[in-house]
Amino acid sequence: MKLWDKGFSTDKKIDHFTVGNDRELDLLLAKYDVIASKAHAKMLGKVGLISADESNVLVQELDAIAETIAAGNFTIEDAFEDMHSKIEFLLIEKLGDTGKKIHTARSRNDQVLVAMQLYLKNELSEIKSEVKTLFDLLLDLAEKHKSVLLPGYTHLQIAMPSSFGLWFSAYAESLIDDLYFVDAAYKIADQNPLGSAAGYGSSFPIDRSFTTKEMGFETLKYNVVAAQMGRGKVEKATAFGISSIAGTLSKLAMDICLYMSQNFDFISFPDELTTGSSIMPHKKNPDVFELIRGKCNKIQAVPNQLTLITNNLPSGYHRDLQLVKEVIVPAIQDIKACLELMHFSLKEIKVNTEILDDTKYDYLFSVDTLNELVTNGMPFRDAYKKMGTEIEAGTFTPKRDIEHSHEGSLGNLCLEGIQKKMNRGLDS
Amino acid sequence: MKLWDKGFSTDKKIDHFTVGNDRELDLLLAKYDVIASKAHAKMLGKVGLISADESNVLVQELDAIAETIAAGNFTIEDAFEDMHSKIEFLLIEKLGDTGKKIHTARSRNDQVLVAMQLYLKNELSEIKSEVKTLFDLLLDLAEKHKSVLLPGYTHLQIAMPSSFGLWFSAYAESLIDDLYFVDAAYKIADQNPLGSAAGYGSSFPIDRSFTTKEMGFETLKYNVVAAQMGRGKVEKATAFGISSIAGTLSKLAMDICLYMSQNFDFISFPDELTTGSSIMPHKKNPDVFELIRGKCNKIQAVPNQLTLITNNLPSGYHRDLQLVKEVIVPAIQDIKACLELMHFSLKEIKVNTEILDDTKYDYLFSVDTLNELVTNGMPFRDAYKKMGTEIEAGTFTPKRDIEHSHEGSLGNLCLEGIQKKMNRGLDS
Amino acid sequence: MKLWDKGFSTDKKIDHFTVGNDRELDLLLAKYDVIASKAHAKMLGKVGLISADESNVLVQELDAIAETIAAGNFTIEDAFEDMHSKIEFLLIEKLGDTGKKIHTARSRNDQVLVAMQLYLKNELSEIKSEVKTLFDLLLDLAEKHKSVLLPGYTHLQIAMPSSFGLWFSAYAESLIDDLYFVDAAYKIADQNPLGSAAGYGSSFPIDRSFTTKEMGFETLKYNVVAAQMGRGKVEKATAFGISSIAGTLSKLAMDICLYMSQNFDFISFPDELTTGSSIMPHKKNPDVFELIRGKCNKIQAVPNQLTLITNNLPSGYHRDLQLVKEVIVPAIQDIKACLELMHFSLKEIKVNTEILDDTKYDYLFSVDTLNELVTNGMPFRDAYKKMGTEIEAGTFTPKRDIEHSHEGSLGNLCLEGIQKKMNRGLDS
Amino acid sequence: MKLWDKGFSTDKKIDHFTVGNDRELDLLLAKYDVIASKAHAKMLGKVGLISADESNVLVQELDAIAETIAAGNFTIEDAFEDMHSKIEFLLIEKLGDTGKKIHTARSRNDQVLVAMQLYLKNELSEIKSEVKTLFDLLLDLAEKHKSVLLPGYTHLQIAMPSSFGLWFSAYAESLIDDLYFVDAAYKIADQNPLGSAAGYGSSFPIDRSFTTKEMGFETLKYNVVAAQMGRGKVEKATAFGISSIAGTLSKLAMDICLYMSQNFDFISFPDELTTGSSIMPHKKNPDVFELIRGKCNKIQAVPNQLTLITNNLPSGYHRDLQLVKEVIVPAIQDIKACLELMHFSLKEIKVNTEILDDTKYDYLFSVDTLNELVTNGMPFRDAYKKMGTEIEAGTFTPKRDIEHSHEGSLGNLCLEGIQKKMNRGLDS
Repeated sequence: MKLWDKGFSTDKKIDHFTVGNDRELDLLLAKYDVIASKAHAKMLGKVGLISADESNVLVQELDAIAETIAAGNFTIEDAFEDMHSKIEFLLIEKLGDTGKKIHTARSRNDQVLVAMQLYLKNELSEIKSEVKTLFDLLLDLAEKHKSVLLPGYTHLQIAMPSSFGLWFSAYAESLIDDLYFVDAAYKIADQNPLGSAAGYGSSFPIDRSFTTKEMGFETLKYNVVAAQMGRGKVEKATAFGISSIAGTLSKLAMDICLYMSQNFDFISFPDELTTGSSIMPHKKNPDVFELIRGKCNKIQAVPNQLTLITNNLPSGYHRDLQLVKEVIVPAIQDIKACLELMHFSLKEIKVNTEILDDTKYDYLFSVDTLNELVTNGMPFRDAYKKMGTEIEAGTFTPKRDIEHSHEGSLGNLCLEGIQKKMNRGLDS
Repeated sequence: MKLWDKGFSTDKKIDHFTVGNDRELDLLLAKYDVIASKAHAKMLGKVGLISADESNVLVQELDAIAETIAAGNFTIEDAFEDMHSKIEFLLIEKLGDTGKKIHTARSRNDQVLVAMQLYLKNELSEIKSEVKTLFDLLLDLAEKHKSVLLPGYTHLQIAMPSSFGLWFSAYAESLIDDLYFVDAAYKIADQNPLGSAAGYGSSFPIDRSFTTKEMGFETLKYNVVAAQMGRGKVEKATAFGISSIAGTLSKLAMDICLYMSQNFDFISFPDELTTGSSIMPHKKNPDVFELIRGKCNKIQAVPNQLTLITNNLPSGYHRDLQLVKEVIVPAIQDIKACLELMHFSLKEIKVNTEILDDTKYDYLFSVDTLNELVTNGMPFRDAYKKMGTEIEAGTFTPKRDIEHSHEGSLGNLCLEGIQKKMNRGLDS
Repeated sequence: MKLWDKGFSTDKKIDHFTVGNDRELDLLLAKYDVIASKAHAKMLGKVGLISADESNVLVQELDAIAETIAAGNFTIEDAFEDMHSKIEFLLIEKLGDTGKKIHTARSRNDQVLVAMQLYLKNELSEIKSEVKTLFDLLLDLAEKHKSVLLPGYTHLQIAMPSSFGLWFSAYAESLIDDLYFVDAAYKIADQNPLGSAAGYGSSFPIDRSFTTKEMGFETLKYNVVAAQMGRGKVEKATAFGISSIAGTLSKLAMDICLYMSQNFDFISFPDELTTGSSIMPHKKNPDVFELIRGKCNKIQAVPNQLTLITNNLPSGYHRDLQLVKEVIVPAIQDIKACLELMHFSLKEIKVNTEILDDTKYDYLFSVDTLNELVTNGMPFRDAYKKMGTEIEAGTFTPKRDIEHSHEGSLGNLCLEGIQKKMNRGLDS
Repeated sequence: MKLWDKGFSTDKKIDHFTVGNDRELDLLLAKYDVIASKAHAKMLGKVGLISADESNVLVQELDAIAETIAAGNFTIEDAFEDMHSKIEFLLIEKLGDTGKKIHTARSRNDQVLVAMQLYLKNELSEIKSEVKTLFDLLLDLAEKHKSVLLPGYTHLQIAMPSSFGLWFSAYAESLIDDLYFVDAAYKIADQNPLGSAAGYGSSFPIDRSFTTKEMGFETLKYNVVAAQMGRGKVEKATAFGISSIAGTLSKLAMDICLYMSQNFDFISFPDELTTGSSIMPHKKNPDVFELIRGKCNKIQAVPNQLTLITNNLPSGYHRDLQLVKEVIVPAIQDIKACLELMHFSLKEIKVNTEILDDTKYDYLFSVDTLNELVTNGMPFRDAYKKMGTEIEAGTFTPKRDIEHSHEGSLGNLCLEGIQKKMNRGLDS
């Protein structure tokens, strides 16, 4: 049932090597092959390459297959190389010669491209929405805990007062940046490649603008060679987007693991969200956050994986490109799981409200005290020296009541501004 | 002259280790530190942290320094750790106590962040403009050579007819995708971080909206912790953008090197653009394109370099972050040189107009011949078998006059559509 | 059945997130956990932590489990977190209290480390053996085709005469270098970590030298903290080894794909090893070699994946480390499949013996002609100019009978020397 | 003065693009080009390609150049593309026609390969020696502080007692593993490539065994194509070696930065080795260690940089390969600086001897208490439950006097065993 079968029996070992886990991944993508096939069938009817009747029955049958997929009953047996072969088989089984006509004016390369891009568009939208959900939670937590202070560190040394309001909303605002890359990836995926055939177009009088509209693409990837070059590139674009999010989640997870350590003791989570040890009852191992960190770090390796697979290949299709699917699909599933678990767990966070009572944090306030001198007219460098001398002499007493009021500081978090920025980002 | 000097003599070896080649890189960035310092000085005057007179003379003196920099006369001696120290020194030397006041309500970390972001905005704009120049050339070449045919390959096997029109404009359209990432990086850089101080803001009543407008930032990075987390992140965003372009240039260079080989002989360049061997006069080594390919492949390693440097560091500044500058600045210079050299060289390309006269390319037309059968009513799979039989029997004669007319095919390049898509991209 | 269960019900979603595909991977590793458990049980008996009888029945029961595993009947149900829990469960089910004693003086971290290292030792040995098999084939092919000439390229430009003898044996000699890294990885894995417990040892009077000998480790990783730090490191060492091999295979595959192109036409393979197109009968798509190239390029990304997962984590176990297993195990399976398929396919290679009959390759011999002038006394730079003039004037006739006789040249391949070098490498 | 000059003036811009910073890097490599040239000149005399007199004066003149280099007086002016051109120029300037003969039977590619391999051998030896120096220091520190206890962490949670003896010597033993990769890289570099000419050998009757012995290579890289394929590969082998060391140093630096934080306060360094803040006198910023960590993380990106530059290039020289030099040489300098600075700084470490007096560390001893129950006959799982109950009930008192005595535990560090293992490693 191989499309390229020439009548020679191909060694089974090679078959296994060449097909890999494509069938399993294709179960996720089959739905999009059907959407594209429907658009193609309608277009073939419209331009007269097949009759209106043929077009209609093909669409009808594809709708039936779509239902099978939606119901979770679609399967790809070993006799089929991939979803494309299986779907075509089902059409031919049902419709005979008419079924065969679905492959008019397209190639498998074409089908893979368009199904992948439809899939990526959908996943990028879902990811964006999950990021937005986490963003909202972070803003809520920032608002809720805005007056709870936290030591701010530089070089991991105690430095300046920070707050849970600042900490939570910093990650919220960072996530907006990540979405710019998700949007860029979405734009790249949102260009219809269907019609590029094997990467050089064809002599059929197909109507690519029609299929573009039909499938809901913003525009078409005009040039057929460019459309083919999108294979690997659109996946890498997606990888840039999700690895950008992963970088932010990983950093947040690192903070959480550190702050849960008894040496910090800034935050805690209910027992259900930690793992422990019955002989060390103080242990609240942050396994979920360690795994989010680890998985997000693994995701950050994906752009490079894809570059290595696709790099220095001259233009035109190469079989190597098949491998990008098995890299990007699990990475997408991983980032979605990490976003979901981060949201699920973070909403249970308990913050320690008494952190700064420990005297080791007194020096946090030295800079603010200094600034007061400056505000009262002393040049900065002079105030800096005066304070230093007092501290060395042990005559320094921290003033803990100084206010930070400028935009984005702990006394003026500008959560609305951050929210508006996110909304603007979402519109684009 | 170290800002953190506490009166202890620091070992010279460590000094060298810690400063690295910062002074050299800072010569490129000094201009932006001055722009930011001017905005800061104006703001300090506006909110009353310094007097209007003090503000004015600081701005005046900074203008003078800006002229020194523009004239190429700015230097950073070994006595200064970096540009920030040197510029502050110049102000104090000229203005005494008033000079010292420039550092009121900011920190060096702040300065580094804002200067880098202003620099990146400028470089990303220039890169975008260079991409546009190359894009225009590619469209011109596509138009000029649109009727010259070229074999299209899949699996590096001769497959379908392509054309120089398709080949050139494919790279043009691909470059548009790369610009989406450049735009994303620009947006991330276009958020004023000034005022974040050491990463936790300060008690000074500074006006961050004022400096945002003054320096021409689209918005501010509100949260001061988020602003500090931008260190490394904004450089990585830039790296995603330039490595996306690099991927496209590298692939084009690979095609060129292949097509210049005597085994293809599709294109050639004037002797000035190749290197040769006086004993092998046929040799036209494509050194420029090999170096573009190599440098672009090196650039594609930059996102991962930056990830490794910044990853798994908890929030807050760490000295490791200083190293991102020495990674991103040369990479920016490299991509600009590659874009410039690609444009400079590619405009001299000579295409071989007789490529398809070689009989080994006859089979290129078999698919089109097949499609004609299909257009005339035969189901695709049946036509496929019939043709195969003819070819095996040696009775196949290629029809070379078949037209490709659909959008984006070799007979209908849609260069205007591609041009419009680029223009839309440029507006955003 | 979780080892860390504290009586709280843990959310199922988290369970799925934290266990991942560990159970599946563990089926490959279970055999090694049993080997290590046997050594541990014997040691516990020897030092008196359990009785001789207890030790004996534990060993006996573990032997039974080993047989189940060997027969392919071992399973890890969802009720068990991993193989360790399942194996312990089986022992307790059969032996009651005695079964519980197997976990005396060890921790799960311990078990994971030692099972992984035993597994890696075995895999690295098998990989080495497969490399040797491919090496032997390459030497055989070099010997068989030693007199068939091939153009040698520099810059992808036709340059100097080469031969199939040189080409095949070049890859053979390159593989020897790769084995030095495989050997280094083996040495690192060949140090017994058992006894390190949770990474800090224990107060039990265990005999680590005994288990070292019992499991066939060359030495022990003495320091228990170092043993724990091996987690991730030993996998990365393995990744260096296999990615080194992958680099060589990928390059060979690239050459093969290029040489199979009709523009080169240097080699071919039987139809069973290529995929085709019934409408383009000339097409012999080198899918197997493209997939070897692609998979080997993906493998070359593995060291970086592991670095990203493990980097910047302070010492001591973190749950992130669990993820290295799901990266390294599939990579090992992939490199073995690539080695096997390369051997399987390459032995069918057919070389084109008439390549140099094409006049475009005449210039290949210009350098040799030049060298003859030099050998006859003319200074190199002068001969170089004289020849150049002749060629420009069209008076040059290539002398195709010049011999290359020095060590390692096409007339003196030194295959025995290469073979001896491999054998020396194998002993070490 | 370009070797490939064909009389055409080459655009200056291209010249700059193609030469890059080669001249600067070549100052480090010139010494090795002279060593190789001397061996080559002797060999040419031996086999009669030049006269004995010619050979002698060439060697004599090369010795003079070697002295110039050693004295730091060697320069490469802009008129010369690289060191090879300059050295040849000096010979011709001094010796006329005889000078020209040095290039008989070799090519520039040859020269680059052999000079780089001699350089790498030397650097790898030096690196190994610096690692040994750091190793010795770590063992000394382990011995000195062997009885000072430290909390051992898992998941960053307080877990089990550790010690400075364990901590220091863990890094020592880890470094031995890294040296296996340094050794592997050394072996790969230790194969004479000279004589491979442009990658395909030559018709000259050269004696490669002679030059192998003369330059002190262990063996020759027989196959000339394999020798050429070493370009990039030997640098990547070196990169594996140094990035393995870098991984260990980075982790040690991470521990140090963490342990210097006021939240741990386990260790400190003299003021000369930290940077501070006069307004926050408690701040002892670990800049040196942060930079070691950052630089080592950057070094860990080098294997991937080299893979990207060299990957998917078919066999035979490509100009891209020139770029590997500018990647590997600075990385070698960086790892040497990191090793030196780590040694320089670490020897000043002060350890806090009272760490465990803090009651938050009491639970560290719970496991040992448990184990005592087990040693006294209770099955592990039962003892585990009993202890848990006591702790929950608050009836647990830690026993701090329990001894760890097994090999590699805190009471039995086996420093001699580790030392012997290192010595064995050094012999190989």
